[in-house]
Amino acid sequence: MRVKASAAASVSNLGPGYDVLGLCLEVPRDEVLAELTQSGKVELVEVSGDEGRLPRVVSENCAGIAAQEILKRFGTPGQGVRLWLHKGLPLGSGLGSSGASAVAAALATARLICPERPKRDLLFACREAERFATGSPHPDNVAPSLLGGLVACVARPTPEEPEGVEIVDLPLPPGLWIAAVKPNVEVRTADARAVLPKEIPMSDVVANLGAMASLVAGLASGDMAQVGRSLIDRIATPYRSSLIPGYEDVVSAACDSGALGAGISGSGPTVFALTVSKEVAESVASRMAETFRGQGHEALTIVGAVDLGGAQVEVL
Amino acid sequence: MRVKASAAASVSNLGPGYDVLGLCLEVPRDEVLAELTQSGKVELVEVSGDEGRLPRVVSENCAGIAAQEILKRFGTPGQGVRLWLHKGLPLGSGLGSSGASAVAAALATARLICPERPKRDLLFACREAERFATGSPHPDNVAPSLLGGLVACVARPTPEEPEGVEIVDLPLPPGLWIAAVKPNVEVRTADARAVLPKEIPMSDVVANLGAMASLVAGLASGDMAQVGRSLIDRIATPYRSSLIPGYEDVVSAACDSGALGAGISGSGPTVFALTVSKEVAESVASRMAETFRGQGHEALTIVGAVDLGGAQVEVL
Repeated sequence: MRVKASAAASVSNLGPGYDVLGLCLEVPRDEVLAELTQSGKVELVEVSGDEGRLPRVVSENCAGIAAQEILKRFGTPGQGVRLWLHKGLPLGSGLGSSGASAVAAALATARLICPERPKRDLLFACREAERFATGSPHPDNVAPSLLGGLVACVARPTPEEPEGVEIVDLPLPPGLWIAAVKPNVEVRTADARAVLPKEIPMSDVVANLGAMASLVAGLASGDMAQVGRSLIDRIATPYRSSLIPGYEDVVSAACDSGALGAGISGSGPTVFALTVSKEVAESVASRMAETFRGQGHEALTIVGAVDLGGAQVEVL
Repeated sequence: MRVKASAAASVSNLGPGYDVLGLCLEVPRDEVLAELTQSGKVELVEVSGDEGRLPRVVSENCAGIAAQEILKRFGTPGQGVRLWLHKGLPLGSGLGSSGASAVAAALATARLICPERPKRDLLFACREAERFATGSPHPDNVAPSLLGGLVACVARPTPEEPEGVEIVDLPLPPGLWIAAVKPNVEVRTADARAVLPKEIPMSDVVANLGAMASLVAGLASGDMAQVGRSLIDRIATPYRSSLIPGYEDVVSAACDSGALGAGISGSGPTVFALTVSKEVAESVASRMAETFRGQGHEALTIVGAVDLGGAQVEVL
């Protein structure tokens, strides 16, 4: 039996939602082909689309790790899977590339060995892959990529599960489109972490809390102007924006050409903008890319609707 | 012409919303009687219900200050008002007592001299009264008391208005009731401020942001269990709860007797609980008061529905 799963890019740290919010895009997507074996283990047959940059060792590859976790928890003795990973996402972009690979692999593996499991039961495996890739099992990319839509990752630590997180679906008005533009610069996750302070001034905390309340209320009522006004962040963006050349100009270009608001996607360097139509998203993306080029940086543009369905799997 | 305005208690700092959220209760209410004069100034004829504790000097009394601000901005030369303030709210309770007086006075004065002004135009005057009373023009009590419902105060600083705040209405499912219990201890606002750190660890910031997203989403969808789970706070409550004797036990008593969740109202010492009916609110309030009594503190109980209308005024 062979299956093919795909999982899409995601915008984490959306607006005021550092380490909390994650939004699933339709495109680009990573794909994982998988087949059941009797090897008792996960084999990674091929990785393509990554220009040879990703590890081929199962235990060092996000897809491999996620598949191993699923196999370990839900497999029966002797069961194994063979995986082919095709990267559709750019690496190191801030669009949840490692997460998309993990989600696609987890879903494909689960379809083979435990098809009755709901998607939410697979999240732990994706989080373990993220722990390997980023040093933290944070679910703000894998949860939206797996489940779709816009989610909030809410800390629910318990003595048994100190890293426990509840994934809360947030309301989403129809018709949201995202423009995401990745300049040709590298932002190392370690650097993006290092620039963040360990403690945040109370006034900035209060500003983000207010923006978060306003954002979710605007999404619930469909007040797009309010959604746009709420895409502010004073706890991560002020520290990280200096890692992205021309960041302020790019955000201004997005807003001037019709975006509701804009910000850093994940830890960057991709800058995302929210818009109310495909046409606006396309024109916003091209203006943002132009602005990056004005700074001497080529830029990749991505335009996609919000994906409410999340990761998909089909039997081949 | 004489008018009578009333404004109710409010729960600020609700759950994760330190300095952001404010919820309007139906009761108790402060009342302000006002009449138009030709004195060109505000006169405070009488203050009752405060056991003589509030200042009688106009410029040092919240009702007086708010009326003065309205008169200054919207009055015509020679116009004056005479005020009678009756306190229905307990003082120093964390239920927005100074705010309710300011709101009632602002609304009464506006009804006399600028009846065409929408309520939101009066907010600045109430904020000035709060600046006098608390040292900060924060609107998280006066905004809900004036406008009703549950609001978020979202920082919108501009060069012209560095203290600019947008008041955002949040969704509210019908049928919410509040139990508020004030133990017979004094929490000085200055002390409640002094115990708060200037900077907050990032993990606590993220926890509150997640809870805020979850809270507003739960309110929008009417998922009361989610609302209850989201009434957590890691940025103010952990520091302030030690000022309230038996705080943890009182919260446990509330939750054990059917409350969705509970927390400190304002800067305390009142503890509030959210419930889904009057009956539950009454039994929760009585259990909370009992728990305070077990700590050796008499307690005042207040049970009220959420007031969607806010402050009211009538011509006598």
